[in-house]
Amino acid sequence: MHVRHAADEDPTAGFYKATRALTDALAAPLSDADATVQSMDDASPAKWHLAHTSWFFETFVLRDHVPGYRLHDRRFPFLFNSYYEAEGRRHARSRRGMVTRPTLDEVRAYRAAVNDAVVAALPTLSPAARTLVELGCHHEQQHQELLVTDILHLFAENPLEPALWAAAPKVPVAMPAAIEWLEREEAIVEIGHGGAGFAFDCEGPRHRALVAPHAIASRTVTNGEWQQFIADGGYREPRWWLSDGWAWVQREAITAPLYWEERDGVWTRFGLDGRRAVDPAAPVTHVSFFEADAYASWAGARLPTEFEWEAAATGHDPAGGNQMDEAGPVEPRPSAEGPAFFGDVWEWTGSAYRPYPGFAPVDGAVGEYNGKFMSGQFVLRGGSCATPRGHARACYRNFFYPHQRWQFTGVRLAKDL
Amino acid sequence: MHVRHAADEDPTAGFYKATRALTDALAAPLSDADATVQSMDDASPAKWHLAHTSWFFETFVLRDHVPGYRLHDRRFPFLFNSYYEAEGRRHARSRRGMVTRPTLDEVRAYRAAVNDAVVAALPTLSPAARTLVELGCHHEQQHQELLVTDILHLFAENPLEPALWAAAPKVPVAMPAAIEWLEREEAIVEIGHGGAGFAFDCEGPRHRALVAPHAIASRTVTNGEWQQFIADGGYREPRWWLSDGWAWVQREAITAPLYWEERDGVWTRFGLDGRRAVDPAAPVTHVSFFEADAYASWAGARLPTEFEWEAAATGHDPAGGNQMDEAGPVEPRPSAEGPAFFGDVWEWTGSAYRPYPGFAPVDGAVGEYNGKFMSGQFVLRGGSCATPRGHARACYRNFFYPHQRWQFTGVRLAKDL
Amino acid sequence: MHVRHAADEDPTAGFYKATRALTDALAAPLSDADATVQSMDDASPAKWHLAHTSWFFETFVLRDHVPGYRLHDRRFPFLFNSYYEAEGRRHARSRRGMVTRPTLDEVRAYRAAVNDAVVAALPTLSPAARTLVELGCHHEQQHQELLVTDILHLFAENPLEPALWAAAPKVPVAMPAAIEWLEREEAIVEIGHGGAGFAFDCEGPRHRALVAPHAIASRTVTNGEWQQFIADGGYREPRWWLSDGWAWVQREAITAPLYWEERDGVWTRFGLDGRRAVDPAAPVTHVSFFEADAYASWAGARLPTEFEWEAAATGHDPAGGNQMDEAGPVEPRPSAEGPAFFGDVWEWTGSAYRPYPGFAPVDGAVGEYNGKFMSGQFVLRGGSCATPRGHARACYRNFFYPHQRWQFTGVRLAKDL
Amino acid sequence: MHVRHAADEDPTAGFYKATRALTDALAAPLSDADATVQSMDDASPAKWHLAHTSWFFETFVLRDHVPGYRLHDRRFPFLFNSYYEAEGRRHARSRRGMVTRPTLDEVRAYRAAVNDAVVAALPTLSPAARTLVELGCHHEQQHQELLVTDILHLFAENPLEPALWAAAPKVPVAMPAAIEWLEREEAIVEIGHGGAGFAFDCEGPRHRALVAPHAIASRTVTNGEWQQFIADGGYREPRWWLSDGWAWVQREAITAPLYWEERDGVWTRFGLDGRRAVDPAAPVTHVSFFEADAYASWAGARLPTEFEWEAAATGHDPAGGNQMDEAGPVEPRPSAEGPAFFGDVWEWTGSAYRPYPGFAPVDGAVGEYNGKFMSGQFVLRGGSCATPRGHARACYRNFFYPHQRWQFTGVRLAKDL
Repeated sequence: MHVRHAADEDPTAGFYKATRALTDALAAPLSDADATVQSMDDASPAKWHLAHTSWFFETFVLRDHVPGYRLHDRRFPFLFNSYYEAEGRRHARSRRGMVTRPTLDEVRAYRAAVNDAVVAALPTLSPAARTLVELGCHHEQQHQELLVTDILHLFAENPLEPALWAAAPKVPVAMPAAIEWLEREEAIVEIGHGGAGFAFDCEGPRHRALVAPHAIASRTVTNGEWQQFIADGGYREPRWWLSDGWAWVQREAITAPLYWEERDGVWTRFGLDGRRAVDPAAPVTHVSFFEADAYASWAGARLPTEFEWEAAATGHDPAGGNQMDEAGPVEPRPSAEGPAFFGDVWEWTGSAYRPYPGFAPVDGAVGEYNGKFMSGQFVLRGGSCATPRGHARACYRNFFYPHQRWQFTGVRLAKDL
Repeated sequence: MHVRHAADEDPTAGFYKATRALTDALAAPLSDADATVQSMDDASPAKWHLAHTSWFFETFVLRDHVPGYRLHDRRFPFLFNSYYEAEGRRHARSRRGMVTRPTLDEVRAYRAAVNDAVVAALPTLSPAARTLVELGCHHEQQHQELLVTDILHLFAENPLEPALWAAAPKVPVAMPAAIEWLEREEAIVEIGHGGAGFAFDCEGPRHRALVAPHAIASRTVTNGEWQQFIADGGYREPRWWLSDGWAWVQREAITAPLYWEERDGVWTRFGLDGRRAVDPAAPVTHVSFFEADAYASWAGARLPTEFEWEAAATGHDPAGGNQMDEAGPVEPRPSAEGPAFFGDVWEWTGSAYRPYPGFAPVDGAVGEYNGKFMSGQFVLRGGSCATPRGHARACYRNFFYPHQRWQFTGVRLAKDL
Repeated sequence: MHVRHAADEDPTAGFYKATRALTDALAAPLSDADATVQSMDDASPAKWHLAHTSWFFETFVLRDHVPGYRLHDRRFPFLFNSYYEAEGRRHARSRRGMVTRPTLDEVRAYRAAVNDAVVAALPTLSPAARTLVELGCHHEQQHQELLVTDILHLFAENPLEPALWAAAPKVPVAMPAAIEWLEREEAIVEIGHGGAGFAFDCEGPRHRALVAPHAIASRTVTNGEWQQFIADGGYREPRWWLSDGWAWVQREAITAPLYWEERDGVWTRFGLDGRRAVDPAAPVTHVSFFEADAYASWAGARLPTEFEWEAAATGHDPAGGNQMDEAGPVEPRPSAEGPAFFGDVWEWTGSAYRPYPGFAPVDGAVGEYNGKFMSGQFVLRGGSCATPRGHARACYRNFFYPHQRWQFTGVRLAKDL
Repeated sequence: MHVRHAADEDPTAGFYKATRALTDALAAPLSDADATVQSMDDASPAKWHLAHTSWFFETFVLRDHVPGYRLHDRRFPFLFNSYYEAEGRRHARSRRGMVTRPTLDEVRAYRAAVNDAVVAALPTLSPAARTLVELGCHHEQQHQELLVTDILHLFAENPLEPALWAAAPKVPVAMPAAIEWLEREEAIVEIGHGGAGFAFDCEGPRHRALVAPHAIASRTVTNGEWQQFIADGGYREPRWWLSDGWAWVQREAITAPLYWEERDGVWTRFGLDGRRAVDPAAPVTHVSFFEADAYASWAGARLPTEFEWEAAATGHDPAGGNQMDEAGPVEPRPSAEGPAFFGDVWEWTGSAYRPYPGFAPVDGAVGEYNGKFMSGQFVLRGGSCATPRGHARACYRNFFYPHQRWQFTGVRLAKDL
C-alpha cells in the first residue's frame, strides 16, 4: 500500500498503523464463524492470521523490548505461534480450525491492545526494535494476502457460494494484444536485494548471475488462452505434463483452474464476489506450477527463470499495476496497457526455491523464517491483485509447492533464443 | 424430559414445544463459531443439528402435509439433509464444518419460522402428519444428545479447554457398594417394542428370545475400578483385547478413556464444565466397546447381551436416574442407590446391531432410518446423562462402532452361570 | 477328505499323513516365486502356509512333547508364527511376502523333516500330544483352503492370467430348479458342538437357541440369478445396500463379484484354471457379505441366521457335495440334485460372529485361536469347493469381515414367516 | 565398465555383449523368488529389470529396425514397458511384484533370444539403429545399478538378513585425512555435455554458467564423521533441518542412515554381504538429501551446486575410483588417496533437477526419458560403487527425491568464500 502520512509523523508509526488498519478492514465483513474455520491444512483461519500477526509484535517487540510489558493473555503464544520452533511448543497447524474460543471479538480486542502498546512504545524504541516493527509490518502484509486467499478457499467450500464483497463495477477494456517477446542476449545480471530498504533474508545476498540468451513474454497468459488449452485437451494429454504433475492431475481429477466450473456450457469462476463468468481478457489465475509448466509445453515455450524475470522486471514500478489498495473483491483484471511485471498474479518461474550464493540464516527465532523452506518449492515473482501495494519488489521471492494453487498464481512464458 | 402441559393443551404440541425449547437451551451458550466447526467426521456442527432437526419437520410435515407451504430457504435441503438418500443429493458429511453461512442467527431464525408454522398447522394436521411431528420430536431428542457430545468433543480440541457451562455443585455421596450379581435361569423372554407408544423401527417386532442362565451386575463399572484396570497394565496386555481392539489401541496410542489425562499424577477428565479431577465413585464413561470388552475380560466377566439387559431392565423406570432434564454440565454421577438401569451411561452390550426376526424397513424416505446401519456396530442400552429424560425405553437400541467413544458410553458386566 | 487307512494303521497317523500330503499336492505346481509373493495383507504366501502349518506341529507337539527335540531352524519361529501373541515376537503380517529366503525347496525340506519327526514320535506320544496332532491337522486343513484362495488371488493379479491347473472336463447338467422354501415353525434348537469328535473352541458350548418361524432356501443363488441382479442395477441402487456396504461399493468401484469381467458382452470369471465364461447354472461365489445382503434385499428376502442354517443342515451329510478331494481346479459346480447344505460355497449368514453362551477361551497359546476375532465379522456356514472333505461340520463356524470376498463365498436366502 | 574387445570386433557389439553379460552376472545368485518380489513402490523386481532392459532393445531396435522381426512374446510389452506413455498401456508400477510368471528362467530365455537377435542384426543395422543399441546399453547400465540397490532393499526386509554375496576380503587402510578445501574464485564455467560421446538428453546443451567464489571438500563425509553427527543429537535438533526434512524425520522415526542399526552398542549396517559393523573410515552412504543438508548445516557448511561439482570434477578420471567392475558385494570403501570425485557414493548437490538453458525433449517415445522428472528432485553427481565403470561422466546428472536413500548416496561439503 502507498503509505501516506503527515509530514511530521514517524514513518514507522504510519506504516504500522496503515498496515494494521488494512488487516482490520479485510476482516471486517467476516463473521465469528467465517474467521474461525480452517478449510484445509495449507490454509489458516482468518482469526489466526489476525492473532498471529499481533503475536509477532507482542513477542518480538513488546515482550523483548518494552520493559515491564505483560502479555495480553499468557495462553496466546501457544495458540498463535506458527513455525518458530525456537519459540517453543505450538498448536498443531492442522487443528487451528478447532479454536472457536477466543472469539473473533476477543481477537480484535487483542489486536487493539497490541496496537495501543506498540504505538505508545514506538517513540522510545531502540533502532533494533523499530526494525522489528517494520519487519512485523512486512510480515503482516504477507498474512494479508494469505487471509484473502484463505477466505476465498473457505467460501468456495460453501455450497451456497457466498460473496465476501459485492462485485466491483466492471470497466470494459479491449482484449489484450498478442504477446510480444522481450529478447535479451547472454548477460551477467545483478540479482537480489542489495539496497537500503527492507527485504526478507532469502532475497539476498545480491550477487551476479549469468542468463542465457532468451525472450520473455510481455504479458501473462489470459483466461481466453487457457480455454484454448483446455479445449485442445491440455488436461488429458500426458505428454505436456511433468510426471509428478500428471500423477496429480489424475489423482485429483483436475480439469481446469481452481474455482472454475463449466455451467450450462459457460466457464465460470468463484471469487470474492461469488460465482461469475470467466473473463477471457483477464490473466488466468489459480493454476499450479504443474499446470503452468504444462501450458508452457503446449504453447511451445517454457517458464522464465527467476533471474530472467528479475532482469526483465528491473526498471518497472513495483508499486504499479493491479495490487491491493483496500479491502474489496480483488481479482486479476484485463489491461490494454503494455508490458507490466507487477500485480494481477504471482508468476510461476521455472526456478526451484533455493538459497543464493552466500545465503546464511539470521540467528535467533526471527531468523527461522525462510531458509527452512528451501526444498520442493518453486519461486514466484511479481505480486498479485491480493498483494498490498508497496509490498512487492523486483527481487521479491515468493514460493509454493508445485501443486498449490489457492493463491493468485499465473503464468508468463519465456523461450530460449 | 417429563413433558408437563396444561390440561387442555394438545399433548403433541406440548411435546413439540418442549423438545424444541430444550434444543435451543442447549445451544444458547454457543457462539457462531462454536456452532459451526466440525471436530471430526463422526461429529456434526451444532448449527447443523439445529438446522437438520428443523429440516425434518419442514420436509416431512410442512412440505408434505401443509398445502401452500413455501420453503423457508430453498437452498437448505441440500445443506441439512443427512442420510436420507431418497431425498436427493446432499452435502458431504465431512465438509459440514465449512458452512459458515447461514450464520447461527440465521439458523435460529429458521428454527423459529419452522416452529411458528408447525404450531400453527398442528390443529389441522391429519393423524398421519401428527405422527410425523412426534417422530420428529424423538428424532430431535437423539440430536440433542449428539449436540451435547459433539460440542464436548470440539471443546476438548481447544488447547484452552473452555467450559461450556460452569460446574454443577458437587453433592458428596458414599462410594458405591460392591457389584451385586442379579441371576436369571434359562428363560424365554419377550423382547422389543410391542405396545402403543413411540419406538424406532429397529426396536421391533416384539418377539420371543431365549436367554441362557446368567448373572448381570447391579451397577456399572466406576472410574475407580477403571483406574485399577489401568494400573494393572490393562492397556498394555494384548490378551485382554479383541484382535481389532488391540490394533486400535496400538494405532491410536490409547492409554485411558477419552478426555482423560494424567496431570501431576492425578487422573483428570475434560467435560462440559472444563477439566477436573476424575471422580472415582462415578461410572466410567467415554470408553469404546473394545475397552469395555477388554475390561470385562480382565475382570473375569463378559458384557451382557442386549436380551439379558432388556430382561433385567424391564420393570425399572426408564425415566429414572441421571438423565438430561435441562441444559447444563451433564455427566455421570455417583449414586448410593441400588440397581439402576437407566441414565448416566449408555451400556455397551455384547450384541451386534442386527435386525430382529420379522424386521422390515418402512417404505419411503422417513423409513431409511435404521436398517441400513446394521453391520459392524454394537448395541448400547439404557440412556445416559445426556439423554433427554423421557426418550429412553427398556427396548431402546442405540448403536455405535466398536472404536467410538465420544458418547457417554460405559460398562455393565455379566457372567455365565 | 475321506481318510482311508489300513485296518491296523494308527488313525491319527493316517489323518496326519493324508493331510500333509494334500497340502504338498496343492503346492506342487507352484514355482518358488508363486509360493513367495503376498498379493494383499489379507492373504499369505503359499510358502508361509506350508511353513506355518509345520511350525504348529514343531512347536506344540515336537518342542513341547518330544524330549530332546531340536528345532529344524531356530530362526523359523519368528518367521512362521502367526497371531499367537503368547509365542512371542513375530514377523509383521503385511511383510510376509518379503521373505524370499528360505526358498520353497528349503520349506519343503522343513515340512519333510517335521513329518519324519512327528511320524516317528506318534507311537509314543501322550494322549494330550496326540490331540494336538489332530488339532494341527484340522488347523492345516484350514490353511489348505486359504492356500488355494490366496494363490487364486495372486494369479488374478497377474496380467497374463495364468492357470494354476488345466481346466477340469465339464459335465453338462440341467439348470437348477427354482428355489424351494424349507419352512420351520418357532422352535428351540440345539446349536453347537457337543459330541465326541473334533471341533474348534468357538463352535461350543452346545446350547439351546430359539428360532423364529422362517423359511430357508433349498439351494444357493446361482450366477444366472446374480446376472439378473446386475442387469437390474443392483450395484447402482443404494436402497438395497447397508450403509457401510454402499460406501464400500462406491469407494472400491464394485460392479460385479470378484474376478468377474465383462469381455465382449460376456461375463467371465478368473479361476484356478484361468479365465473362462461364467456358468449361469453354478452357485455364485466371491461375493462379500455386503453384496449378499444387498442381493437378499433386492430379492425380497434376507440372509438366514447361523442358527436357522445349522438347524436346517443338521441331518445332511457334512462330507457330501462339492468339497475338495484332491489338488485341482476346484470351483462351485451346478447340480441338479435336491437340497444340499455342504460344499460349493461358504454361505454368508446374517449372524455376527460372537461367542456362544458359556464360551470361554482355552488357556495357553494354542487357545488364542478364535475368541479374539469376535468383532466386526460375520459367520459363514457349510464349507466350499476348497474345503478339504471331512473338515466341515453342521456346527462349523467360519467368519470373515463383511467386505472380504476372496474366499469361495456365496448366498442362501431365507425369509420370515 | 572398461569394455575390452578384440581389435577387429565391432565396438558396439562388444559394448552390447559386455553390458548384457554383467547384468546376467549380477542376477546370477538370485532365486526365482528373489527376482520376483518388489519391496517398495520405488523399487522394481530384479526380473523386471532383466526383462525391461531387453524389452528396450526388442522394441526400439528389433521391432522398429529389423524387418520381419517377431516379438518373443506379444504379452511382454504390457508387462515390461516402464514410463514410456507413448508406447501404450502398461502394468501399474506398484503391482510389478505380483508377476510370478513368466519365471526367472523364462525371462533369462527372453534375454538370450533378444541377445541372439541383436547380435545377428548388428552388422546390417543402420547408424540410427546402432545409436539406439548404444542408448540401450547405457540404459541397461542404469538398471544394473538399480538392480543392485533394489535387491539390497529387498534383502534388508528379510528378518534373516541374508547375504547376496560373501563378503569381500577387507584391506586395511589408514583413516582418511582431514578434508581439504579446494577453492575457486568467481568464474564462468562450461557445463554439460558437448563432446562426441554418449550422454543423456538432460546433460545438455553445453552452456556457460557463473559460479560464485566457493570451496569444495576434497573428499566425502565418512561414517565416523556421521557418527559424531548422531552423537551430537543431529537427528533430534530441528534447527539443522529443512522443514520438509524435519517432518520426514519425525514421521518416519529416522535416527540413522538406512540399513544402520545399533546392536550391543555398535553401529552396524546391512549390505550385500549381510550385516556387518560400520567402517568409520568409509564414506557414509544411504543418506537422503534431507540428511545430507542437515549434516552440512550442522558442520557449518552447505552442499555444492551441481555446477561447482562439475567444475571441480573436470579433469579427474570418470572411470577411476571405486565403481562396479563385476558382480559382487560392492560398497563404499575407505581410501587413503587424495581428492576423488568418481565412485563410492553419488553425491547430493544443492541443485534442484531442472533443465539447462536450451534443453528440449527429443521427439518420440525414446525421448520421454528425462525431462518429465524435472520437479521436486535433486541432482546427484559422481557415480557410486554400484555404477558400472565407464558409465559415469563429469557432466552426468543423476536425480532422486530428497527423502530417497536406497541408492548409494553420500555427501560432499562446500562453502561460500
